[in-house]
Amino acid sequence: MKIIGIEHIGIAVDDLTKEGKFWNLILGLNRIHTEEVLEQGVITDIYDGRNAKIELLQSMYPNSPISNFIEKRGKGIHHICLKVDNIQQAIDELKEKKIKLIGEDYYIGAEGFKVIFIHPSSTGGVLLELAEEKD
Amino acid sequence: MKIIGIEHIGIAVDDLTKEGKFWNLILGLNRIHTEEVLEQGVITDIYDGRNAKIELLQSMYPNSPISNFIEKRGKGIHHICLKVDNIQQAIDELKEKKIKLIGEDYYIGAEGFKVIFIHPSSTGGVLLELAEEKD
Repeated sequence: MKIIGIEHIGIAVDDLTKEGKFWNLILGLNRIHTEEVLEQGVITDIYDGRNAKIELLQSMYPNSPISNFIEKRGKGIHHICLKVDNIQQAIDELKEKKIKLIGEDYYIGAEGFKVIFIHPSSTGGVLLELAEEKD
Repeated sequence: MKIIGIEHIGIAVDDLTKEGKFWNLILGLNRIHTEEVLEQGVITDIYDGRNAKIELLQSMYPNSPISNFIEKRGKGIHHICLKVDNIQQAIDELKEKKIKLIGEDYYIGAEGFKVIFIHPSSTGGVLLELAEEKD
């Protein structure tokens, strides 16, 4: 498995506009993209953190993963996403090493990336996404 | 304030050796540095995430910030650190904008960086460190 680098950090918010002000107006990061990701039940505002992105994630409906996360732990850092060169190879390797994935296969996430999440029970409590950029 | 990029992501662990195996042996990231940061009460193993670092943080004693964090929320992602060009300028600007900092002034953190933390109440629940690289 080849890790290319940190692709983004996902942050659970309850109001994209309100919470976005800190990243945009206070820190001066530019919002580069907004997208609905139906598979994850989120709308995401993506900010340019220069070497990696900051993704603010707002739930689209009750009982979505982000909605449940906020209810349980409050707003804040939700996951780290690492960019890989070949996600299928990474999935095969992780399964062979008995690492617990969320779901069996990758699916298409924000910006067309092929993505899968590793379960926090295999990482020491970190929800870790792997993502391969679309061709 | 000028944000240069994401410097590292800090992860609270209870055992550097045990939790480090995932980042090193499974993901293939190299450990580049180990350091005790007395001011924060932690020992940190720093892994090379290519474009930014992954810092595993183990508490040095009970009731340290990391120890309290794990007790309250469990192991996992603790903070994001953004690299700035001039931390004193950033602090002055944040104070002027009524952003709540933890402490009044920067201090010296891991790898000799000048660092300060922004309180999660000002960021939407994210513990955010700012760091200026030493000359």
